[in-house]
Amino acid sequence: MSRQDGRAPDQLRPITITRDWIAHAEGSVLVEFGGTRVLCAASVQDSVPRWRRGSGQGWVTAEYAMLPRATNTRNDRESVRGKIGGRTHEISRLIGRSLRACVDFKALGENSVVLDCDVLQADGGTRTAAITGAYVALADAVRWMRERKMCPGDPLIGSISAVSVGVVGGVPLLDLCYVEDVAAGTDMNVVMTGEGAFVEVQGTAEGAPFDRDVLNQLLDLAAAGCEELTLHQQEALGR
Amino acid sequence: MSRQDGRAPDQLRPITITRDWIAHAEGSVLVEFGGTRVLCAASVQDSVPRWRRGSGQGWVTAEYAMLPRATNTRNDRESVRGKIGGRTHEISRLIGRSLRACVDFKALGENSVVLDCDVLQADGGTRTAAITGAYVALADAVRWMRERKMCPGDPLIGSISAVSVGVVGGVPLLDLCYVEDVAAGTDMNVVMTGEGAFVEVQGTAEGAPFDRDVLNQLLDLAAAGCEELTLHQQEALGR
Amino acid sequence: MSRQDGRAPDQLRPITITRDWIAHAEGSVLVEFGGTRVLCAASVQDSVPRWRRGSGQGWVTAEYAMLPRATNTRNDRESVRGKIGGRTHEISRLIGRSLRACVDFKALGENSVVLDCDVLQADGGTRTAAITGAYVALADAVRWMRERKMCPGDPLIGSISAVSVGVVGGVPLLDLCYVEDVAAGTDMNVVMTGEGAFVEVQGTAEGAPFDRDVLNQLLDLAAAGCEELTLHQQEALGR
Amino acid sequence: MSRQDGRAPDQLRPITITRDWIAHAEGSVLVEFGGTRVLCAASVQDSVPRWRRGSGQGWVTAEYAMLPRATNTRNDRESVRGKIGGRTHEISRLIGRSLRACVDFKALGENSVVLDCDVLQADGGTRTAAITGAYVALADAVRWMRERKMCPGDPLIGSISAVSVGVVGGVPLLDLCYVEDVAAGTDMNVVMTGEGAFVEVQGTAEGAPFDRDVLNQLLDLAAAGCEELTLHQQEALGR
Amino acid sequence: MSRQDGRAPDQLRPITITRDWIAHAEGSVLVEFGGTRVLCAASVQDSVPRWRRGSGQGWVTAEYAMLPRATNTRNDRESVRGKIGGRTHEISRLIGRSLRACVDFKALGENSVVLDCDVLQADGGTRTAAITGAYVALADAVRWMRERKMCPGDPLIGSISAVSVGVVGGVPLLDLCYVEDVAAGTDMNVVMTGEGAFVEVQGTAEGAPFDRDVLNQLLDLAAAGCEELTLHQQEALGR
Amino acid sequence: MSRQDGRAPDQLRPITITRDWIAHAEGSVLVEFGGTRVLCAASVQDSVPRWRRGSGQGWVTAEYAMLPRATNTRNDRESVRGKIGGRTHEISRLIGRSLRACVDFKALGENSVVLDCDVLQADGGTRTAAITGAYVALADAVRWMRERKMCPGDPLIGSISAVSVGVVGGVPLLDLCYVEDVAAGTDMNVVMTGEGAFVEVQGTAEGAPFDRDVLNQLLDLAAAGCEELTLHQQEALGR
Repeated sequence: MSRQDGRAPDQLRPITITRDWIAHAEGSVLVEFGGTRVLCAASVQDSVPRWRRGSGQGWVTAEYAMLPRATNTRNDRESVRGKIGGRTHEISRLIGRSLRACVDFKALGENSVVLDCDVLQADGGTRTAAITGAYVALADAVRWMRERKMCPGDPLIGSISAVSVGVVGGVPLLDLCYVEDVAAGTDMNVVMTGEGAFVEVQGTAEGAPFDRDVLNQLLDLAAAGCEELTLHQQEALGR
Repeated sequence: MSRQDGRAPDQLRPITITRDWIAHAEGSVLVEFGGTRVLCAASVQDSVPRWRRGSGQGWVTAEYAMLPRATNTRNDRESVRGKIGGRTHEISRLIGRSLRACVDFKALGENSVVLDCDVLQADGGTRTAAITGAYVALADAVRWMRERKMCPGDPLIGSISAVSVGVVGGVPLLDLCYVEDVAAGTDMNVVMTGEGAFVEVQGTAEGAPFDRDVLNQLLDLAAAGCEELTLHQQEALGR
Repeated sequence: MSRQDGRAPDQLRPITITRDWIAHAEGSVLVEFGGTRVLCAASVQDSVPRWRRGSGQGWVTAEYAMLPRATNTRNDRESVRGKIGGRTHEISRLIGRSLRACVDFKALGENSVVLDCDVLQADGGTRTAAITGAYVALADAVRWMRERKMCPGDPLIGSISAVSVGVVGGVPLLDLCYVEDVAAGTDMNVVMTGEGAFVEVQGTAEGAPFDRDVLNQLLDLAAAGCEELTLHQQEALGR
Repeated sequence: MSRQDGRAPDQLRPITITRDWIAHAEGSVLVEFGGTRVLCAASVQDSVPRWRRGSGQGWVTAEYAMLPRATNTRNDRESVRGKIGGRTHEISRLIGRSLRACVDFKALGENSVVLDCDVLQADGGTRTAAITGAYVALADAVRWMRERKMCPGDPLIGSISAVSVGVVGGVPLLDLCYVEDVAAGTDMNVVMTGEGAFVEVQGTAEGAPFDRDVLNQLLDLAAAGCEELTLHQQEALGR
Repeated sequence: MSRQDGRAPDQLRPITITRDWIAHAEGSVLVEFGGTRVLCAASVQDSVPRWRRGSGQGWVTAEYAMLPRATNTRNDRESVRGKIGGRTHEISRLIGRSLRACVDFKALGENSVVLDCDVLQADGGTRTAAITGAYVALADAVRWMRERKMCPGDPLIGSISAVSVGVVGGVPLLDLCYVEDVAAGTDMNVVMTGEGAFVEVQGTAEGAPFDRDVLNQLLDLAAAGCEELTLHQQEALGR
Repeated sequence: MSRQDGRAPDQLRPITITRDWIAHAEGSVLVEFGGTRVLCAASVQDSVPRWRRGSGQGWVTAEYAMLPRATNTRNDRESVRGKIGGRTHEISRLIGRSLRACVDFKALGENSVVLDCDVLQADGGTRTAAITGAYVALADAVRWMRERKMCPGDPLIGSISAVSVGVVGGVPLLDLCYVEDVAAGTDMNVVMTGEGAFVEVQGTAEGAPFDRDVLNQLLDLAAAGCEELTLHQQEALGR
């Protein structure tokens, strides 16, 4: 069995990370995982949410959204419907939680970074592309803050990347495109640090439940994928 | 190190499953995991959502909510705030997805079951208690339907239970209560079939990222816990 | 003509009032009027709404809601619909107004009590059961506050109970169950103090308009019913 | 003790009922109870709500609202706040229920009348003025329908009027203006048919609970007031 | 070709401006352009929006709305639908912007005026009638403030009026009524100062695009119409 | 006086129109007016809104939005706030109205085109850039439909472009960037056909009211600007 685009089962799609894509944001990245294209903008605010005030600590949050025609058929705008759907909420929360895992909030001081991840074009793996790109936008925003001496220390204590894995036709695959995602019996999103530890593991049996052995194969694939994404991030950041 | 309530690290809290707790529902269960008390009501409808019509297949969905004073301090009602929060959405989706894993939709026919999981009292693990209880309510609703010959076949193809696990003070623990949940560095919810396969694995590093070894220990604990919960379900159902 | 459950026209359904039903609330009661089952939770807050600040006086408010499957057919959640219906608003306001009639706000000091009345199972008379149970939860919350010396005086200046009455098939009946409520030509909810004075009288001609004589008979029935409910409350409170 | 405007305790304010105040509506009335001025518009629709279709019967509903500057200080618009308040809901429901008491829905056929009651200027008693005026607008709409032979019979089986009564400084008073309404210890709205039967009795102890004797005095006052209002309605309608 | 109501192409409908139409507002006007009837109420507040605080300057804003039965067929209330439509928003913004053109915000001091324009009856040109009437209500509110010495100077630096113009059947017409508005190929709303300068010019080709020559004819008509409206305003204000 | 970026008063910013920027849409354009960057996506639907059904005619509508960090400081998402702001509504309506001026709805048949205009980066003139780009996306969508023989005729009866003009420091300027827009005393958006006729003229005196002479100068500037934009559109479309 071969993949639609000729990739090996353990091969990522072409990855590009373009920094400074938006003029106004303190950090901004257009991240592409094949046909998936997400604009990640990091906005610095010299304040924190109410419940955090006076703590001396900062905060990082995220909002995920899709343009109406990012997908094959047009989706109604959530602003027009007047409420945010469950999927959007869930992914926004995942991105924020993931990025907070690489931040030292005391070193950040009472500042916030909001990570807006807007999907311009979707072809599977939008949430993992968003996390991977948002890390680079966050790193740029942190540098911007440090140049202005806004932070008491270095808030970045590691790097974060994410990738999807899944079982299609019995074969574990890395970085599913949309067609593969729809066909997958088991689907997993894995968020890892640059040092190879887990931040989030979210596996779902869309079809038949899966056993421990499949779980292990998927985690192996994801770990290798995240390692490669970390290199892409470092290269983009000129490290 | 010992647990607040004297349990062993791999011990569940006292589990009770009371069927027929509500007069009107086709299936209803009050499930208790220690101090966590969730009312699960299954409502049968002889129709399916619009996108499913004419398919000959049924559907199962879930809604999770908490009474305002289920927790230590009062929470505003989501109906009063006018919108459902991200956490509620996320858990409702998880419960629905989990229960659908044990249903044969063709055997269900064009009927729906809605699983309402309302937390009356919360002490950690409300979503896993809800899933475990909702399965029993669903089983009763299915029996109710079969007695009325509404279904072309037997829609129940297995059983589903769920439990939380986490690392507190370096020790992997089963079935966290609220105090342990708050203290946990890593937190995982695992949904499994009665035969021991995975339906959902959702692990989050609330504190430090976790390695593969910790992940494995947590999965072992969860598998044993779900096995025990399956026995409680069978006993409640008189099997 | 006889009532479905064999009661005399002037007979209440079996009444049970179970205190401390919820662990976290300062006062909590499960009240049952036959098959109607309402969970009343009283939450103490050491603050008052903005318009009340600096007055030295407290406040009492209430919120009424029904679980989706409290009734024979499932109702959509108001949180999902995104707004509270007119009936819910109206009953919440009635409960709050009724309970405020037994409170001395100066003696309460600048504290608030929120009374959450959630109908777990409905069989007619949910609003009158809610008021009757909420009084007991309020009494417990007040005792909790007085033990902590939060109040400058004794805020409870009386007791409050409520009952429905109506005319079914030309016969005035006390404490209507759902089937009777639907059949009633005239329907009245009466809220009274423990000393027999009126707090609220809400009579509606669902069918033919009613005359003064019928009104008087209904008020007589309600007064006797509330007197009996007051005894149940006192017994529950161990007085 | 004398009333602010020199009225006797059992005296209505000056009542005016101006028909055809709005060009487009099938029935429209500007009703004035002293300084309270409500525009009542009746809109005929040749359809009924979904739940009523195929029944051969019609429906009557009402919506009440206040212009932002009808009162002494400006109120925010409910359209701007994005939701209807509890008080608005409650009064809209009361008006609809009251007017339905004088309609024979079979004689109306599958037609609807919507009664919009918009308070242009408020000085107490807006809901009772609205009901009293809405009856006249409804009568005009019914005549409009009958001229077009839309109805199988005569849908108007009586007339409806309403008035507020209350106890101020120990004295029962008819038709409270705003200043009296604020000062009232007990407040009651009474809706009656032209033949003197009760449709709605809503009494509230704003201050001290009230006894049976006071209730009776208030009902006497209200009955006399509604009788007089019925004459005003008949005169306006040229009967 | 002649107009439905016999007017010349450059003739306004009968204009009436009735001051003090509402008892409670600091300024209130019922303005009529033929069958279009708008109630304009000006409410004074001794505060400004948050973003304006500490500036020493005031603010003027407007809200436009239509009663449900102002038009030939009933419109649903925006409060019931739960959101304000695009047209309402657009007109509210236009009215506010237009009136601000005649106000010196420093002379107003940190006070606000809210202009509520509620259409009681609609027959075309509601927004231009609203602007023309709101100016008079604003002038009365400013006088009210000056009598109380609330303003550091004279905030009114001119007058504002507005009129619609359009091309119907090839003929440029002034002050379109509803039937003409619907038939118009080009439609323009023009807001001017009492001295003949433009504040807003909003022209739309509803049918065929229009050329510069037509634009000039419409602007000539509008300028003459606004001049006449200015005289009506001055007369109403007793100047 | 010279412009910030060295342009002559009658000079457009660098204009780029990139077609096929999004893979899934039937027409998609990234349009840039200097630093203003708008993604215009045209979505074809083989149906029309309810009110249009059975007419044999099509429809074109538009939705405008801004990404949160398109501007210098971050704006809250309208989906999070739960409602669309007045400015967004107004611009969406303007874009839809403008594009409909170049469409023959009978030739379109009962099909719809939705034009989504999402501002990725804002530097003044976002609505005029959106209109100019949306025309090209619409032309591509129409070609897509005609290739599939969905339309009974050729729906495109002309072209549409738009530009802003304004008076800054007394000098009329073409195509204002953000800094100029803020400084402008008078601001005008002009929408024209490729043949030089007006579709929309929207002029606003942000500062002092403007006279006829200034209006004429601005219209001259806008006409020349739209002529040049039309050439850019034709070039992009390969005509």
